[in-house]
Amino acid sequence: MSHDTSAAPAGDADRAAVLDTARRAKDAAVALATASRAAKDAAVVAMADALVAETPRIVAANALDLARARANGTSEALIDRLTLTPDRIADIAEALRSVAELPDPVGEVVRGYTLPNGLEIRQVRVPMGVIGIVYEARPNVTVDAAGLCLKSGNAVLLRGSSSAYDSNLALVAVMQDALAASGLPRDGVQLVPGTSHEAVKHLMTARGLVDLLIPRGGADLIRSVVEESTVPVIETGVGNCHVYIDAAADIDKAVAILVNSKTQRVSVCNAAETVLVHAGIADAFLPAALAALQERGVTIHGDARMRPYAEAAGIPFAAATDVDWAEEYYSLDLAAALVDSLDDALRHIRRWSSGHTEAIVTDSVEASRRFIAGCDSAAVMVNASTRFTDGGEFGFGAEIGISTQKLHARGPMGLPELTSTTYVVTGAGHIRG
Amino acid sequence: MSHDTSAAPAGDADRAAVLDTARRAKDAAVALATASRAAKDAAVVAMADALVAETPRIVAANALDLARARANGTSEALIDRLTLTPDRIADIAEALRSVAELPDPVGEVVRGYTLPNGLEIRQVRVPMGVIGIVYEARPNVTVDAAGLCLKSGNAVLLRGSSSAYDSNLALVAVMQDALAASGLPRDGVQLVPGTSHEAVKHLMTARGLVDLLIPRGGADLIRSVVEESTVPVIETGVGNCHVYIDAAADIDKAVAILVNSKTQRVSVCNAAETVLVHAGIADAFLPAALAALQERGVTIHGDARMRPYAEAAGIPFAAATDVDWAEEYYSLDLAAALVDSLDDALRHIRRWSSGHTEAIVTDSVEASRRFIAGCDSAAVMVNASTRFTDGGEFGFGAEIGISTQKLHARGPMGLPELTSTTYVVTGAGHIRG
Repeated sequence: MSHDTSAAPAGDADRAAVLDTARRAKDAAVALATASRAAKDAAVVAMADALVAETPRIVAANALDLARARANGTSEALIDRLTLTPDRIADIAEALRSVAELPDPVGEVVRGYTLPNGLEIRQVRVPMGVIGIVYEARPNVTVDAAGLCLKSGNAVLLRGSSSAYDSNLALVAVMQDALAASGLPRDGVQLVPGTSHEAVKHLMTARGLVDLLIPRGGADLIRSVVEESTVPVIETGVGNCHVYIDAAADIDKAVAILVNSKTQRVSVCNAAETVLVHAGIADAFLPAALAALQERGVTIHGDARMRPYAEAAGIPFAAATDVDWAEEYYSLDLAAALVDSLDDALRHIRRWSSGHTEAIVTDSVEASRRFIAGCDSAAVMVNASTRFTDGGEFGFGAEIGISTQKLHARGPMGLPELTSTTYVVTGAGHIRG
Repeated sequence: MSHDTSAAPAGDADRAAVLDTARRAKDAAVALATASRAAKDAAVVAMADALVAETPRIVAANALDLARARANGTSEALIDRLTLTPDRIADIAEALRSVAELPDPVGEVVRGYTLPNGLEIRQVRVPMGVIGIVYEARPNVTVDAAGLCLKSGNAVLLRGSSSAYDSNLALVAVMQDALAASGLPRDGVQLVPGTSHEAVKHLMTARGLVDLLIPRGGADLIRSVVEESTVPVIETGVGNCHVYIDAAADIDKAVAILVNSKTQRVSVCNAAETVLVHAGIADAFLPAALAALQERGVTIHGDARMRPYAEAAGIPFAAATDVDWAEEYYSLDLAAALVDSLDDALRHIRRWSSGHTEAIVTDSVEASRRFIAGCDSAAVMVNASTRFTDGGEFGFGAEIGISTQKLHARGPMGLPELTSTTYVVTGAGHIRG
């Protein structure tokens, strides 16, 4: 995780201050857990209205962050991610309104049945309680996460990047006022006090107060949260995604899917990082594929068998090492290898994948069946781009992140993934014999 | 966690040995994940047959553990838990046969739909991969856990108590032979090498090799696993369960439910540890309840308002401190307090509960509704004993433990809780625009 080297915009927070915030979140969570859908939706819409109404205040706070970032020599790309304009604030508010329209997951009966002895069992969706989100850079996450947690009946503790601290302070203050005006507890949305990594550590070890911690950001941030947390964590988002071009692939579909998976947006976790090509289709597939990739500025990091195809196509080529098979490039680089069989492709994928998304292009039912069974990832695409692994694309309406772990949630996480369940058992004086 | 002070029955294992075991489990998991239900059921039944056939070998190994336990001055109660007889082995084998008869959770389509763009999305249940189980004393857990993990397509790493090491070695060897004879990988069921706590630490930090770790046992064991693990963990079983006798309770049902919750079996996590009595019903309820509890040898640890009722009933009484409200007694002790309202009862429960099971006895629909909404526990009983929170009682057929955390699984965990899901997305050359 990167930290500002400039003077922190606010003083550091000790453990007591972080735990006090968490305790107030826990109290707020009790009220939020039983708030009606109508009350929660009204509060989320009120938050959206307030963000638009308070645009000048938010832009002014954002200017402080931008000035600090410029003084620190932050890159223009990062400064762009940090920038809040009236248009962007309007978009953020619009996203909140969409969240209000989503169905409420709380109260859903997941299973229900009556036992032979007459006991009635219902497994009912309930909020998690207090959810902590640790994230980097973009201040829109502050609002998205608050909206999704609130809608699912949870209190949220937000820990954004110190580079966005003033923006986040303003966004949270505006949302808290709207919450209070709607009759819900303002402590339902809080910023974790302090800007140091110590504050994150206190959050990660607040057992009994934090029910779930979700890190969103780069691999280093996620690793540090997973390793240091003693509260439950969901890992998100690291994506070393593979596209396998099977011997029975349709060439046109294969080229289109590979180009889209790699180049449609390179800075995202569901972009492809490696292509594996069945040797039996290499001569037919690679000339067209490499020409299309070259046109979009891609560099190939290939094995020895890939080199002659790259040289023939005139696409930039470097010899791949193990680093390339493991790398999430986030750039117009693509690792590439020939494989002699679907099983070889699966062996490569199982060895190097981060468990996010793998795609196969094939017209063979048997090949697709074996590929699906042999992958161990959150999503498997058959004749579709890896870029579809996304809560919005899946029709969830919103997404809090993409889980790459197997516990609780795997793949894009929407509102139901922010809930737990409880068993409600109703009897007529039943006792065990 | 308690460790033998006698010479360990096997040498200690270094990190490399534990990781090597985990790696072999990971390889076995690939084959198990795609094994058919027929193959898995046949293997589980073969394990049951082999355990019965190899009874003399298992009893002989168990005798080594028993001799060591006696030499260490182990209590007769613990020695009884450790003892394997031909009858007990037959029961353990019978439980395996029941597991074989349960439906296979793997392959179940949890959700499925087609998007407006024609992409077909299916969320399919898949095995977790490698599951580690860390448990104490009773060697039957070795077989139960192996059967449940195998049936759900997972490889299992078993880490039992060092006091049962020889018994576990024999049980696992017999099961491995049966697995191999059935054509499934013998590494699907393995004992973690070594008997020291270090071996557990290596297991808890085997990131990328262990997909889920489940501690089963006392509070200390569970806490140490939760705090030291960097692999995903499910907390199980600590139960400080409450029974609340509402103002609108039926007295006879209330007495029966309280007595059953507290005394039917005291050494289990779903036994009640605290009763909260609405002041408005105390005069009608407590004389009958305390008489029934006294008859069963219960001692009351009560607040000041409870004392006169206890003295009138002649039941042993001690003044309760905060230790009593927090305690999981595992004995014929019961903490007891009068409360002036349902809200006061909920405040007490939210402060002291371990989140396992709470019960309300009431004939008021409104009271039961408020109680259900106000608890934050894995199970809430309305007019039923806390003792019903159990996989067997819930009709799951088998149980790997009772989760008291909110992530992934909450309450009794059966076969589906030992699985994850993956999204299978099928297109016709779909790319993102």
